[in-house]
Amino acid sequence: MSRIYERVALIGLGLIAGSMARAMKRHDLAGEITGFARSAETRDTVRELGFCDRVTQTAGEAVAGADLVVLAVPMGAMEAVARDIAPHLAEGATLTDVGSVKAPVLRGVGPLLPAGVHFIPGHPIAGTEHSGPRAGFAELFENRYTLLTPPEGTDTEALARLRALWEAMGAHVEEMDAEHHDLVLGVTSHAPHLIAYTMVGVADDLSRVTDSEVIKYSAAGFRDFTRIAASDPTMWRDVFLTNKDATLEILGRFTEELFALQRAIRTGDGDFLFDYFTRTRAIRRGIIEAGQDTAAPDFGRVPVAGDKEG
Amino acid sequence: MSRIYERVALIGLGLIAGSMARAMKRHDLAGEITGFARSAETRDTVRELGFCDRVTQTAGEAVAGADLVVLAVPMGAMEAVARDIAPHLAEGATLTDVGSVKAPVLRGVGPLLPAGVHFIPGHPIAGTEHSGPRAGFAELFENRYTLLTPPEGTDTEALARLRALWEAMGAHVEEMDAEHHDLVLGVTSHAPHLIAYTMVGVADDLSRVTDSEVIKYSAAGFRDFTRIAASDPTMWRDVFLTNKDATLEILGRFTEELFALQRAIRTGDGDFLFDYFTRTRAIRRGIIEAGQDTAAPDFGRVPVAGDKEG
Repeated sequence: MSRIYERVALIGLGLIAGSMARAMKRHDLAGEITGFARSAETRDTVRELGFCDRVTQTAGEAVAGADLVVLAVPMGAMEAVARDIAPHLAEGATLTDVGSVKAPVLRGVGPLLPAGVHFIPGHPIAGTEHSGPRAGFAELFENRYTLLTPPEGTDTEALARLRALWEAMGAHVEEMDAEHHDLVLGVTSHAPHLIAYTMVGVADDLSRVTDSEVIKYSAAGFRDFTRIAASDPTMWRDVFLTNKDATLEILGRFTEELFALQRAIRTGDGDFLFDYFTRTRAIRRGIIEAGQDTAAPDFGRVPVAGDKEG
Repeated sequence: MSRIYERVALIGLGLIAGSMARAMKRHDLAGEITGFARSAETRDTVRELGFCDRVTQTAGEAVAGADLVVLAVPMGAMEAVARDIAPHLAEGATLTDVGSVKAPVLRGVGPLLPAGVHFIPGHPIAGTEHSGPRAGFAELFENRYTLLTPPEGTDTEALARLRALWEAMGAHVEEMDAEHHDLVLGVTSHAPHLIAYTMVGVADDLSRVTDSEVIKYSAAGFRDFTRIAASDPTMWRDVFLTNKDATLEILGRFTEELFALQRAIRTGDGDFLFDYFTRTRAIRRGIIEAGQDTAAPDFGRVPVAGDKEG
């Protein structure tokens, strides 16, 4: 694979930046990778892990001379970081980010940048419930989608180059409008996370059932919620505060549906429940067919193939 | 392992009964295993799979002479099946079930049984999102909990024998009151399933986001919900209809908490969100420490251990 950028600067060195660096190294996509993180401890960890060529003491140093700058910090820190690095950005550089909400980045970061910098917000739909530089791995983006939300008038060459980088890291790249992105992710990510956090909070708080009981009997379904409810609190606080409107819209719809199902339970309307539960199976099949999950049962247990004798 | 029962009859031949049969065969826990399922297609499949020694044409034939009878049918079918087999049960036999709700089984099935039959309701907290006889496997119960809810005055020897069977299949066995069981499972299983079904239903129904978008970008969190929302519709309809009170109680608490989080989003109360999301991490750690899940990130991707070079 030929190099796509001469110097890539990663601002923020957590799961996503760490995975990008590892993927770029593996496929030789960048001449040099510089990195900066606010925490000295993170910088030391990254020096030890070695996935950046240079870890700098300031964000400005990291971006100086870079032809690609990636903002990989929580949503709430985007503007402050952009303000900090703006004077150091090279003419003709591309600035992108990996934040989970796109319209606020477009509105907040865009106006802070000097002319001659190509600003193309992005969002890799990939991650795990772990965070920090040690959590990253080169395969994170493979067969996952990365969404780019280029503002009108984006330089086509700069856009093609950024697409090429993501594709070389294994991602499928699609472009969409920032507002639409935020609604789509509200459904597929933000609302599910909030609901998972809520369910785990309820279980933790129920006085008639002990935490120990919740933990021991979690294999019955609850466990699947705890995985996403263990995600990074800072990142998710910022997601909800910045994607407020879409999240609240979807939660409103969710509550409406939940009330309809609750009423069916209360009134004993078995047909309504059965039809509802049958319909939701189809989406699962779609996800498996699209390669976004496997059909293998995942309740912590793997079935024995061709098991006949018992 | 020595035999615990001479003849075990399985009524209903889906995931749980199929896994029990395979586990009993593997560890030589039963002299003979007979089976019955209402559907002729299921009976043929089980004959082909071979995990029962005999598949009978009626439930009565299957239970005749059995010293253990297991009802492994959906909650809504328990009473009809119990009525059907009652005249054929052997004096001194133990009757158990594997239903997800225990108080209704105790109330509904208990009075139908002849004197001299030991009735000990049970519930293995194990399963996958797949159903049917092909979905079973011998390891399903290993390191999972099985809850028994023996009514007052249960024969201690019959209880010890049923415990021994579950333990020999790898389960941790605990006893509790049927009502408490239903509340605990309401939290760890029933409410989470209903919430997952609801979220998947909302996503499917949102006119401004296409199903194709939901599927493609599901790796961002939504995917975890679709797994449990793909569970068997008949079984789950019956669970909600029979565990109505506990489910509605927990959904009430859930809605209350969800509204508190929604308000925090609306008013921009980041501290409330951050504290909430930090608290829910602890439960996840508890589950991993209890061996009910692994810490491996499970977003369809496995990290490379010791990855240093990228």
